[in-house]
Amino acid sequence: MKKLINAVPDVVKEQLEGMAAAHPDLIKVHYEPDYVYRADAPVAGKVAIISGGGSGHEPMHGGFVGMGMLDAACPGAVFTSPTPDQMYEAAQAVNSGAGVLFLVKNYTGDVLNFEMAADMAYAEGIPVQNILIDDDVAVKDSLYTAGRRGVGTTVLVEKIVGAAAEAGYNLEQCADLARKANSYGRSMGMALTSCTVPAAGKPIFEMGDDEMEFGIGIHGEPGQKRMKLIPADELTDMMAKEIIHDKAYSRTVRELVDGQWVDKELVDEPFKRGDKVIAFVNSMGGTPVSELYAVYRKLAEVCAAEGIEIVRNLIGPYITSLEMAGMSITLLKADDEILKFWDAPVKTPGLRWGV
Amino acid sequence: MKKLINAVPDVVKEQLEGMAAAHPDLIKVHYEPDYVYRADAPVAGKVAIISGGGSGHEPMHGGFVGMGMLDAACPGAVFTSPTPDQMYEAAQAVNSGAGVLFLVKNYTGDVLNFEMAADMAYAEGIPVQNILIDDDVAVKDSLYTAGRRGVGTTVLVEKIVGAAAEAGYNLEQCADLARKANSYGRSMGMALTSCTVPAAGKPIFEMGDDEMEFGIGIHGEPGQKRMKLIPADELTDMMAKEIIHDKAYSRTVRELVDGQWVDKELVDEPFKRGDKVIAFVNSMGGTPVSELYAVYRKLAEVCAAEGIEIVRNLIGPYITSLEMAGMSITLLKADDEILKFWDAPVKTPGLRWGV
Repeated sequence: MKKLINAVPDVVKEQLEGMAAAHPDLIKVHYEPDYVYRADAPVAGKVAIISGGGSGHEPMHGGFVGMGMLDAACPGAVFTSPTPDQMYEAAQAVNSGAGVLFLVKNYTGDVLNFEMAADMAYAEGIPVQNILIDDDVAVKDSLYTAGRRGVGTTVLVEKIVGAAAEAGYNLEQCADLARKANSYGRSMGMALTSCTVPAAGKPIFEMGDDEMEFGIGIHGEPGQKRMKLIPADELTDMMAKEIIHDKAYSRTVRELVDGQWVDKELVDEPFKRGDKVIAFVNSMGGTPVSELYAVYRKLAEVCAAEGIEIVRNLIGPYITSLEMAGMSITLLKADDEILKFWDAPVKTPGLRWGV
Repeated sequence: MKKLINAVPDVVKEQLEGMAAAHPDLIKVHYEPDYVYRADAPVAGKVAIISGGGSGHEPMHGGFVGMGMLDAACPGAVFTSPTPDQMYEAAQAVNSGAGVLFLVKNYTGDVLNFEMAADMAYAEGIPVQNILIDDDVAVKDSLYTAGRRGVGTTVLVEKIVGAAAEAGYNLEQCADLARKANSYGRSMGMALTSCTVPAAGKPIFEMGDDEMEFGIGIHGEPGQKRMKLIPADELTDMMAKEIIHDKAYSRTVRELVDGQWVDKELVDEPFKRGDKVIAFVNSMGGTPVSELYAVYRKLAEVCAAEGIEIVRNLIGPYITSLEMAGMSITLLKADDEILKFWDAPVKTPGLRWGV
C-alpha cells in the first residue's frame, strides 16, 4: 500500500486536521464525533445543508463546506457510513432555527443512519428534511444499496441547494429544489485501476493490465461489466449514451415530512433533445485532469449530436474513490433556477468561484 | 498503459481540444504551432505573460491561461520542450504593444528554445524579457538541466506576476517581480509511483512496492535517493527541512535586456525565522487531495516549529507528472507585494478565485 499516511487508524483524523489547519477561515472540525462545519455556523436565518458519507471521496463532502454550499459534512471511516450521532450533533451545531436539510447518497448504511439522525433531530425540535441522491444509471441494486447509487450528482446538488439556502430559500423550498436537481441528474463511472482502503492494506478488487470496469461505483463496487480497455472516444460515447438514453426511472423513497416518514413515488424523466445541461467530468482520484479533457472533448461532441446543449461544466477530481484511476460523467438538466444557483458564488476548500 | 486516450500521436491535441471546448469564455487554442491563449487577447496596454513546456503537467501551463495569470501557454509533446516558433507565434498573438515576459522553467531544452523565441520576437520589434524559474532544492544539475530544475514555484510565479501585469506593471516591473518571486521560492518533490509517457507506452522508471523516490523531478528524473517508504509525517518533515534549511543559492542566469543577452549573478537567500510564506502542497497527479491534507497537517507543524509563518496555501494537483503518485512541497516567502498579487482575482481553467 503506497499512500502518504501515518498509522492506519489515524488516516481520516489526520486528513481532517490538515484541512482544518489549511482553511481556518472557511471551516472548523469537531472530533468524536467527527464533523466539518462552517467557521461562521450557525448562519442566522439560513437553512443548514448537511451531507456526509464514508471518507475516501475527497474533496466530497468536507471540502464542500463553506459559503454557498454545505454547512456541515459528516465523514465516516473510509468507505463506511458515518453514524447517526455525527449527523445529529452536526445538525445541532449548525441549525440556526431555520432547520436542516440532509442530502443523503443512496447507500443502505447512509440512508438508515441519516434517518435515525433525522428522527433524533426532529425529537429535539430541529426542523429537518432528508433528500436522497440516486443518480447512477449503471446498475439498479448493488452490493451497497437497493436502487440507484448516489454518485456525481451529489456534488452538483450540494452546490445548487447550498446556493439556494444562502439566498434565503426555506427548508421546504430547499428540499424541493434538491429533489428536483437529483431527478435532473444522471451519472455513470468507470475504473482503470482498483484502489486500496488503508485498513485493508490491499486493493479492493483485482483487474488485469488490459481491463477496465464499466459502470463502477465509488466504492469500487462492480458495474455493468468487466471489459477490455477501449479508446477514450469509444468509452465516452458509450457512457454518454447510457446517460442520455436512460429511460424514465421510478422508485419509492422515504422522506421525513413534519416528523412523519412518508413514502413518495418519484420519477426521473429522461433527457430530451433541446435540454440544457451542466456536464461534470470527474476523476476517480488517480486520473489526471489532462485525460478528463480528452473525455470532455468527446462528451461535447456526443451531446451536440444528441441535441443536448452543455451550458456549464465542471472538470476535475471532486467525488473520488481514493487513488482509483478512472472517471465518471454526470449530466444534469439545467433550468433557470438551477443555473442561477449554479452560478452563485461559492467559497469552500474544494470548490470556489465568484468570491 | 492504462489511460483515457485515443491514438498516441493525438494525445496532446485532443486534450487541448477538450480544454478549448470546455472553456471558450476563457481561452482559445491555436494549432500548428500549438498554443493556448486568452480569449480576449491581446489585452490593451497589458504586458503579456507567456509560459510553456512539455505537456503532462496539467493544469500547468495551459490551464493557467486567463484573467490574472497567463496570456498564453505553449505545450510541447509530453515531457518535451515546445519549439521556438510556438513561443514566437504566441508572443505575436498576445502582445498588445506593452511587451512579453517569458517565464521559463529551467530545463535545457526549454531555456534554449525560449531564448531563440525571444531573439525572434525582439527582431520583430516586440519588447521581450525572459525570467528563469529554478527552485528545486533536491538536486543541483540533473539529467534535464544544469542548475536547479524549475518546479512548483512556477505555478506561484505565474499567479503573482499575472496579477501584477493585470494591475498595470510594465515589462521591467513584471520581470523584476518574477525574478524576486522565483528567488523567494523553494520546492522539493517525491514519488510513490512511476508514470507512463504515452509515446513510450511503459513506465519511465521502475520502483519497488515498498520504495519511493525522494527529490524526484517532474519528468520522473532521479532525485536525491531511492528509499523505503516512510510515514507521511517523517517524509514531510524531511522535505520541509530540506527547503527551510536550504543555504543561499548562487548561480549565473542569462537574461535578455534591450535585445542583449547578459549574464546576471543571482543569489536566493535562505529562509529565516519570522518569514511569512505561501505554502503549496501539490499532487504529482495520482495522489488524491485527502493525502495532501495529511502532508499539509505536518508541514504546518514543521513550519511553526521553525518560525516560518504560513499565511496562504494552495493544495491540489497543479503541476503534475501525468498519473504519477507523489507530491511536492513549495514554500515561497511572501512580502506585501507578493501577497497583494497572490490575493488578486484570477479566472483560468485551473485556478480561480475572486471572480
